[in-house]
Amino acid sequence: MEKVNVDALFLGPKSENEQFLKEMITYMLDEHIHWRKDFHPEDKPAMTEEEKRSKNFQDTLMKTKEALDELSAKLRKSSMPWFSPRYLGHMNSDVLMPAVIAYVATILYNPNNCAYEGAPATTSLEIEVGKQLAAMMGYDPKTAWGHITSGGHVANFEGVWFMRNMKSIPLAIKKVKPELIKGMDEWQLLNMKSKDILDLVAKTKELNIFDEVRAHSVRGTGVQDGQLGKLLVPQSKHYSWTKSVDILGIGQDSFINIQVNDKFRMDMDHLKETIDDLISKKIPIMGVVSVVGSTEEGAVDEVYKVVELRKEYEKKGISFYYHIDAAYGGYNRSIFLDDKGDFIKYEDLKKVLHEKGVVHRDIPWPSKGIYDSYKEMEQADSITVDPHKMGYVPYAAGAFLAKDKRATDLVSYFAAYVFAKGMSDENPVLLGSYIMEGSKAGATVAAVWTANKVVPLNVDGYGRIIGRSHEAAGRFYNSIVALDVFKAENGKTYKIAALTQPDFNLVAFTFNELGNTSLEKMNRLTLAIYDRCSYVDGPVYYDKFITSHSEFTPESYGNAPLSFLKKLGIPASEYDKVKSVWFLRSCILTPFLEHNTSYQNYWDRFLGIMKKIIADVAPKN
Amino acid sequence: MEKVNVDALFLGPKSENEQFLKEMITYMLDEHIHWRKDFHPEDKPAMTEEEKRSKNFQDTLMKTKEALDELSAKLRKSSMPWFSPRYLGHMNSDVLMPAVIAYVATILYNPNNCAYEGAPATTSLEIEVGKQLAAMMGYDPKTAWGHITSGGHVANFEGVWFMRNMKSIPLAIKKVKPELIKGMDEWQLLNMKSKDILDLVAKTKELNIFDEVRAHSVRGTGVQDGQLGKLLVPQSKHYSWTKSVDILGIGQDSFINIQVNDKFRMDMDHLKETIDDLISKKIPIMGVVSVVGSTEEGAVDEVYKVVELRKEYEKKGISFYYHIDAAYGGYNRSIFLDDKGDFIKYEDLKKVLHEKGVVHRDIPWPSKGIYDSYKEMEQADSITVDPHKMGYVPYAAGAFLAKDKRATDLVSYFAAYVFAKGMSDENPVLLGSYIMEGSKAGATVAAVWTANKVVPLNVDGYGRIIGRSHEAAGRFYNSIVALDVFKAENGKTYKIAALTQPDFNLVAFTFNELGNTSLEKMNRLTLAIYDRCSYVDGPVYYDKFITSHSEFTPESYGNAPLSFLKKLGIPASEYDKVKSVWFLRSCILTPFLEHNTSYQNYWDRFLGIMKKIIADVAPKN
Repeated sequence: MEKVNVDALFLGPKSENEQFLKEMITYMLDEHIHWRKDFHPEDKPAMTEEEKRSKNFQDTLMKTKEALDELSAKLRKSSMPWFSPRYLGHMNSDVLMPAVIAYVATILYNPNNCAYEGAPATTSLEIEVGKQLAAMMGYDPKTAWGHITSGGHVANFEGVWFMRNMKSIPLAIKKVKPELIKGMDEWQLLNMKSKDILDLVAKTKELNIFDEVRAHSVRGTGVQDGQLGKLLVPQSKHYSWTKSVDILGIGQDSFINIQVNDKFRMDMDHLKETIDDLISKKIPIMGVVSVVGSTEEGAVDEVYKVVELRKEYEKKGISFYYHIDAAYGGYNRSIFLDDKGDFIKYEDLKKVLHEKGVVHRDIPWPSKGIYDSYKEMEQADSITVDPHKMGYVPYAAGAFLAKDKRATDLVSYFAAYVFAKGMSDENPVLLGSYIMEGSKAGATVAAVWTANKVVPLNVDGYGRIIGRSHEAAGRFYNSIVALDVFKAENGKTYKIAALTQPDFNLVAFTFNELGNTSLEKMNRLTLAIYDRCSYVDGPVYYDKFITSHSEFTPESYGNAPLSFLKKLGIPASEYDKVKSVWFLRSCILTPFLEHNTSYQNYWDRFLGIMKKIIADVAPKN
Repeated sequence: MEKVNVDALFLGPKSENEQFLKEMITYMLDEHIHWRKDFHPEDKPAMTEEEKRSKNFQDTLMKTKEALDELSAKLRKSSMPWFSPRYLGHMNSDVLMPAVIAYVATILYNPNNCAYEGAPATTSLEIEVGKQLAAMMGYDPKTAWGHITSGGHVANFEGVWFMRNMKSIPLAIKKVKPELIKGMDEWQLLNMKSKDILDLVAKTKELNIFDEVRAHSVRGTGVQDGQLGKLLVPQSKHYSWTKSVDILGIGQDSFINIQVNDKFRMDMDHLKETIDDLISKKIPIMGVVSVVGSTEEGAVDEVYKVVELRKEYEKKGISFYYHIDAAYGGYNRSIFLDDKGDFIKYEDLKKVLHEKGVVHRDIPWPSKGIYDSYKEMEQADSITVDPHKMGYVPYAAGAFLAKDKRATDLVSYFAAYVFAKGMSDENPVLLGSYIMEGSKAGATVAAVWTANKVVPLNVDGYGRIIGRSHEAAGRFYNSIVALDVFKAENGKTYKIAALTQPDFNLVAFTFNELGNTSLEKMNRLTLAIYDRCSYVDGPVYYDKFITSHSEFTPESYGNAPLSFLKKLGIPASEYDKVKSVWFLRSCILTPFLEHNTSYQNYWDRFLGIMKKIIADVAPKN
C-alpha cells in the first residue's frame, strides 16, 4: 500500500503549500460557479450588468470588502498560530488541506444533513464516514452506527442518552408485557446486558408493542428519582460529563467520580470497590465511562481491564453500559490497523512501526497495556471520537459511534429506521430523528470524508501523522527527563519534571527552583510562565512559545498529583495546605517536529526561551 | 441611512457576482498565507523544495485532487439548487456572500469558541453577535444573554434546560435556606415569576449559599417524577420539542400539545382551558412555548396574547417560563426596526415599508396581530433564532437568547461569569461552561458577525432581504387565490388552494381535480407531484421546479386542516377516514422573485410546469 506523504497534507508553518491550496480552492470555486450557470441555462440572470455598475450596488460590495478587512485584521491580530511548532498547548495544530478545501467547496452548496431532502449529496457521505469511524474502533460497520456531531460534548451526551434510555427499557417491558421477562425481578431487569436488552426490543417490535414500551420507558415517564442507578466516571473526565448528567436529567447525585492512579488512569481497585459497594446497597450501575486520552494528562484508561471486569460481573448477574470517551485519543486506534483494517499483532507492531518509520525505535510507545486498551475498545457499547482533534479537520466535528445500530430505536422518533424514498442504500429520510442535533453542516461531513479518502484510517494513513506526534511527545518527555536540572539566565538552578511518561501525545510538566519546597511559590512560577506563553501577555503573534495550563485540586483529583510533586521536591503537606497544583500542558499534535529534521533544534530553542522567561518572571531577590 | 443593495449580497442564480467572490476569497487566502509566513520569519520552512518535487509528495497532492474531484462530482450531481428561484421548498436559498467569504477565511485560522484560549479573535465576536441578536428581539443587550448554537434544536433544548433548572430553584432554596422564602408554600414556589427567582438567586449568592442551592436543584437531584410540571407547546411545534423533553429527562408525559386554530396558530382558548385545568389539579406549568414561523405552515403564534395571559395569571399567583421558538421567523423582527433599533410605530409601518420599497403596497403584510406578536417578543424569557435560516448564513448556525443574563448561572459550572484574564471586555474564559455545547467553530460566528456588519438587523438591512421574500410569498398566495381553477394539459380541470394567507414567507398549497371528493385520490396527486418536483425523480438538477411537502394527521393536528380541505372540495368525513392530508410546502426565501422584475414571468412558468406535470402524473382514465 502506498504511504501518504504527511508534509503534502498541510498548508505548513510557512505556507509551504500555498500554491496548491490556492489552485485547488479556485478550482473548486469554478466548479461551483459553473454548476449554477449550467442549471437551466435558459433562465435569465437576476441582475443586469448595468445594475452591477450602479453606485448602490458598488457601495454594498465596498461595504463587504471593508467588513472582511476588519474581520481579517481581527483574525490576524489575535488568532492562535496552531500551524507553528512553537504552539504546544491545546489539542490543536495545522489541519489537513484536503479537509479544508472540501469544507470550503461544500459550503458553497450549503447542504444540511438533518434531512435527506436538504442534503442528497452529503447524507450518504455521513453514513459512509460513520461506518469508517466505527470500523476504526473495531466495530462491524454492518451492524454498528456512527454519525458526526458538533463535538465531543454532544457525542458524550448521546452516550448518556443511549445508556439512560436503554437501562429503562426492561422496566418498561415489565409494565407493558411482563410475560417477556417472566421470572426476572427489578434488580435483574436493571442488570441486563446491552445485547439482551436490544434482543428484547426486537421481540417487542415483532409483537408490535415497541411504541408502547418506549412510552413507558424513561423518555415517556421522565427520570424518576435516580431509579436507573449511577454513572461511574474517572476523575480525569472532561467537564462535559459533569454537564451531561444535568442536561439528561439524571442529576449530579447520580454521578460517581472514580479516583485516578498516579498515571492518571482510572484506578481499577477503586472502580471495583465502588461497584461492590453499590451492589451491596442494591443500587444499579447505569454506566461506566473510560477516558482514552484525558484532556489534561493524555492518560489512556485501562479499557481491557474494564472489559474483563464487566465480563466477571456479568457472571454474577451484574451488568452496565460501557462508554468510552475517546474524543481526544480515538483516532490513535488507526495506528494499530494494517491496510486491511486488521488489528496488528502485538509481536509485530513495533517492527511495523519502526520499519515504516511511523515511530522511531527510540520511542518506547506503546506499552502492552496501551495496546490492549486500544484493542479492547471494540467491546464498548459506544464511543466518542472527535475528527476535529486527532482527525486534523477544522472545527466543529465530533462523532458518536455505537456498537449495535439497533440502539438508535431507543432515541429515535420513528418506529424504525426509514430510508429515503427511491434510494437503494441506507440513507435515512430524516437523520435528525436518530441523533441529538438537527440541522448540521454537510460541509463538516465532506471534510471528514475527503480526509479519510486521502488519509486512510490505518497505519499508513492517519498512523503516519499521529506517529509523528508520538515521536515528538516521546522525545520531549525524554529531553525533560534527561535535562532534570538547569541554570536559568538569572543564574539560579531549576528543576523540570514531567507529570508522567505520556500514554498519548500530551506532555504535562512544570518547573521549580531547586530547593524550593513551597507549592505556592512553584504555582506562582508556573502561572507567570503561562502568562508569558499565552494570550494573556498580549497578542500571541509575538510570543516565542505558546502553551496551555491546567490545575489539580484535591477535590477533583485526590492524591493523584503527589508523585509529581515529589519529583519537583514539594512535600505532600504543601498539597494539603495549598490545595492546588498548576502545571503546563502541551498537546503535541504538530506533525512538524520530526526527530530527523527539526526536533533537536526545537528543543534547544525551547530551553533557551524558558531560561530567559524564567529569569524574567522569577522573583528578583 | 444607506440602504443595502440586496443583489450585491449574493453570488446569484447565474453566479452573477462570481468575479467579486473569487477576488475576495483569493484576497482572504493571501491574508492568511502571509500571516503564517510573518509569524517568526526566522523559523525555517518545514519542507524543502526538493521534497516537494519528490514522487511521494506529488502522489499525495494528486490523491488530494482526485478526492476533491470525486467530492465535487457528488456535490454537483445531487445538491439542491437553493440559489435558483425554481427552488421553493425548505427554508433555504442562496446565502450571503459576506458570510460565505468570512466563513471560508476564518476556517483557515480554525478558532474554537469553546474557550477564550482557543479563540481570542472570535470569542468577542460571539459576545457581540449575541448582543446584536438580543437587541433585535427587543432585549436590553446590557442585561440579556445570547450565543450561537449549532442550530435550532440545541437552542430549543437550552430553552428547556433554562426553564427546568429555574423552576427547581425555589424548592432548592426551601431546603437550604427556608428563611429566604418564608411563608411560601410549594405551590407558590412553583409559580414564582422568572425575575423573582433570579432576584432570589442573587440573594443566595450574597449569602454564599448559591452552590449549595444549585446542588439541591434539579441539576443536583435529577428530575423527580414530573414534580416541576408541564410544558405546553402548540401542535405546530418543530419535532425538536418532542426530542427536548426526552433528552432533558422530563419525559413525554410532561408534554402537552395545545391545539392550533385554522390559521395554524396556537389556539388561545385551548391554552387557557389547559392552564385552568392544570391549576385545578394543582399541577404546575413549567413553561409555555410559542412558535414564530412554524416550519410546516409559516404560522406566527399570537405572542401578545400569551404575554397578556401570563400577566393576568400572575395576578392570581400563577406563573410560567415563556420561550419563543423563532428559529424560522425570528430575523423577521428586523423589518420592524428603524436605524436606531426602535420598533416602528404601527401607524408608520406601512408607509415606511412602501416608501422604502421593502414591501410593495399590493401586499397586505403585516396584519396588526402579527405586528403585535413581533412587538411583544421582548417579553419572553428566552428565544430561539436561526441565523442559518432567515439570516442567510451557511449551516450550521442557530442562536439562543435569554432576557436575563443572570439565568446562565443556573446552567453554568462556574460560581459566576468568569472573564478572560487581562481582557477588559466581557469575554468569558470558558464559553463552553455557559452553554450546552463545547467545541464550536469560530468561523460560524465570524460569518454571522460579518453578515450583520454589512446587513444591519433593521428595515434597511435584513428588512430589505426579508421584504423581498414577503413580496414573493404574498404574490404567490394572491396568484393562487386568483387562479382558483385551471385546465391541465390532460384537458381536465383542477382546483388549486392555499392553506392560509401567509403569516410569514411560507405558502402551503395543493391541487385537486375539480369535483373529486376522495381525499385519498387528492393525496395521491400531491405525492405524485412532489415526486416529480424533488430528489425522488432523480437528480434535482434536471427538475424544473423543486418543492417540499408535509402531512397533517388528526393525531398531530386535530381538526385544523378541515377548512383547507373544504376549499379543495373534500368533505370532513374523508379526513376522519383517511387520517392524512398531504400538501406542498414552499418556503419562499429567494430574494430573486421581485414583483417588478421576475415575479410574473416566474408564476407563468410555474403554472405551465404544473399543468404538464399534473397531466403526466394524473390517472389516465
